[in-house]
Amino acid sequence: MKLLDFLKPAEAYTRRAGPLDKIVLTSRVRLARNLESVSFPGHSKKAQRVEALQILLPAVSELGLMKGGAHEGMGKLTALEKQILVERHLISREHAARGGGSAVVLSKDELISVMINEEDHLRMQVILPGLQIKEAWSKINAFDSKLELVVPYAFSSKYGYLTACPTNLGTGIRVSAMLHLPGLVLAEHINQIITSVNKLGLAVRGLYGEGTEALGNVFQVSNQMTLGESEEEIVEKLNKVVLQIVENEENARRKILETNPKMLLNHIGRAYGILSHSHSISSKETKNLLSLLRLGVDLELFPTEHRALVDELFIVTEPAHIQRRSEGKKSAEERDVLRADLLRERLVAVPRPSEALQDAVDETSESES
Amino acid sequence: MKLLDFLKPAEAYTRRAGPLDKIVLTSRVRLARNLESVSFPGHSKKAQRVEALQILLPAVSELGLMKGGAHEGMGKLTALEKQILVERHLISREHAARGGGSAVVLSKDELISVMINEEDHLRMQVILPGLQIKEAWSKINAFDSKLELVVPYAFSSKYGYLTACPTNLGTGIRVSAMLHLPGLVLAEHINQIITSVNKLGLAVRGLYGEGTEALGNVFQVSNQMTLGESEEEIVEKLNKVVLQIVENEENARRKILETNPKMLLNHIGRAYGILSHSHSISSKETKNLLSLLRLGVDLELFPTEHRALVDELFIVTEPAHIQRRSEGKKSAEERDVLRADLLRERLVAVPRPSEALQDAVDETSESES
Repeated sequence: MKLLDFLKPAEAYTRRAGPLDKIVLTSRVRLARNLESVSFPGHSKKAQRVEALQILLPAVSELGLMKGGAHEGMGKLTALEKQILVERHLISREHAARGGGSAVVLSKDELISVMINEEDHLRMQVILPGLQIKEAWSKINAFDSKLELVVPYAFSSKYGYLTACPTNLGTGIRVSAMLHLPGLVLAEHINQIITSVNKLGLAVRGLYGEGTEALGNVFQVSNQMTLGESEEEIVEKLNKVVLQIVENEENARRKILETNPKMLLNHIGRAYGILSHSHSISSKETKNLLSLLRLGVDLELFPTEHRALVDELFIVTEPAHIQRRSEGKKSAEERDVLRADLLRERLVAVPRPSEALQDAVDETSESES
Repeated sequence: MKLLDFLKPAEAYTRRAGPLDKIVLTSRVRLARNLESVSFPGHSKKAQRVEALQILLPAVSELGLMKGGAHEGMGKLTALEKQILVERHLISREHAARGGGSAVVLSKDELISVMINEEDHLRMQVILPGLQIKEAWSKINAFDSKLELVVPYAFSSKYGYLTACPTNLGTGIRVSAMLHLPGLVLAEHINQIITSVNKLGLAVRGLYGEGTEALGNVFQVSNQMTLGESEEEIVEKLNKVVLQIVENEENARRKILETNPKMLLNHIGRAYGILSHSHSISSKETKNLLSLLRLGVDLELFPTEHRALVDELFIVTEPAHIQRRSEGKKSAEERDVLRADLLRERLVAVPRPSEALQDAVDETSESES
């Protein structure tokens, strides 16, 4: 079975609900592990990478949690297929650059994904919708414990799990949450928040992690330290900080609603107008405008039933997803036209934004916090 | 009767049709004249300006062509009323700065307007819709000839009509046409055209004449020289140059339609989207986007019945026209919100642009040139 045929349609992702998912898009926990007896992928020859792969691929695929899942060697995927996996956040951009000797394994529900021979022999992650950091941790922890029974990990009683890069040494854990923060961006408080979060030893990054831009007002918050704190302490800390950022975002939205509601209506109305009527639009502009539409749904300017459509559009307007819809290689300019066509077509279903702002933020905090 | 009550609603202006009015918005001929016996307004004391006014106001108002018209002293108009007259192109910005001792006289149809004691004792103009430079000349010439029978003009057999500024000396004539040139702007050929037109001794200016910006892709082309050429030669030359620019604009539109129709659809679609959904919009952005809507009507992306509405919106979204609609002095920011409210309200009547471009340019040139 081809891996892309295995993937669920984008709308399946975006109909998953989770706690506080107006602001917390997803929660993710990733573990880095290496085999005891084989050199790390970055330092090994192809034969050793193949050896690691031959140990790990069956071990991972045959775990009960991966039943009904799929796997593929990176050498067998086209550049387009790899990019689709990146856009779904199932593999890293670094892993997409790998070929033979590396592989990806997905669980049936696509919530667990494992990269074999990325920077480490194993990078395994669980992604859940909304604020479910603890749940994601408990799920990947169970997965890891079962795998550890059949695979000998490189482990030091002094340092913990050994990893290719020292920033992962110890627990090998990276906990992150993807946050949608248009209120803090519009209120121009986002840099203040980033500074505070950094002071707590956490990193704030863009939509695709390290070194990427915060497109669509989406920010990834994650731990930096993997040594000297237990997994539970790291998970607890990140959960607490995310709850604080959510509160800040709610306050920012409430403040704008009170002091400058027209500014909100103006941004959201224009975003709707452009997305519904353009005939050429870049991926970057699309994300920034869809972010405002999502805010519009939160504020009940659009019927809430359209939240899933907006979230789906975030995925299906990504470059590789656009390319996939058509025959023949398209240039960036041609994709911009196809993206605009898709947006006009899908947004016909969404009525023009309401002229009146509900005080939707208060409702959020009452019912969900 | 108050002067503003006398003015027709803006829609009356924009339902006037004229030859080639897809591209030539209006044609205007203005004459500068001075009284023989009184100092020019810029050099005179108030008593002399009042003397000139007392001679000229009855002489002008009582001409047959001005029957049923209106007049008002500039000292009796509020700043808002003056600005409305500027936005209707009935008086100059300089005249709006005048007070007692100056006046404006309008014909019933508002096609003839006369400023008394602007820079010269008399500035009289005829504005007609579309390309009607010759008609405007013949109308203002008839007006001038009748006035000359009752008013002694400052005239030199060597230089012709004497004027305050030497740039008006001789014929005292300023012939101009207001051209809508989005095609040349989008094709980035406009600067080339401006350079060519300048070489012919003609000036190209913005929407409100000298020293103003070309907002909404509207350019005013006018003669620079008033000495050494007859009125008929000047009129003939301007008419010829305007016809050439119209041809260039049609070619630019045709070329874009052939080579990059998506770019046109994109600009027009986005303009419609923003104008129909913003909640705050400046006068400048409004003009630039309305220009694209007007182009959309020309290209039959919108039903042609909406041309008058688009043209009306150009006028009624001007700052003083927006201010006039509400009680109490509004700030620029408040006007931006009121302007957006007006645009959303009025544009509900205009359906979303068609997805297919007609070859509307060819039709234009066949039927009108």
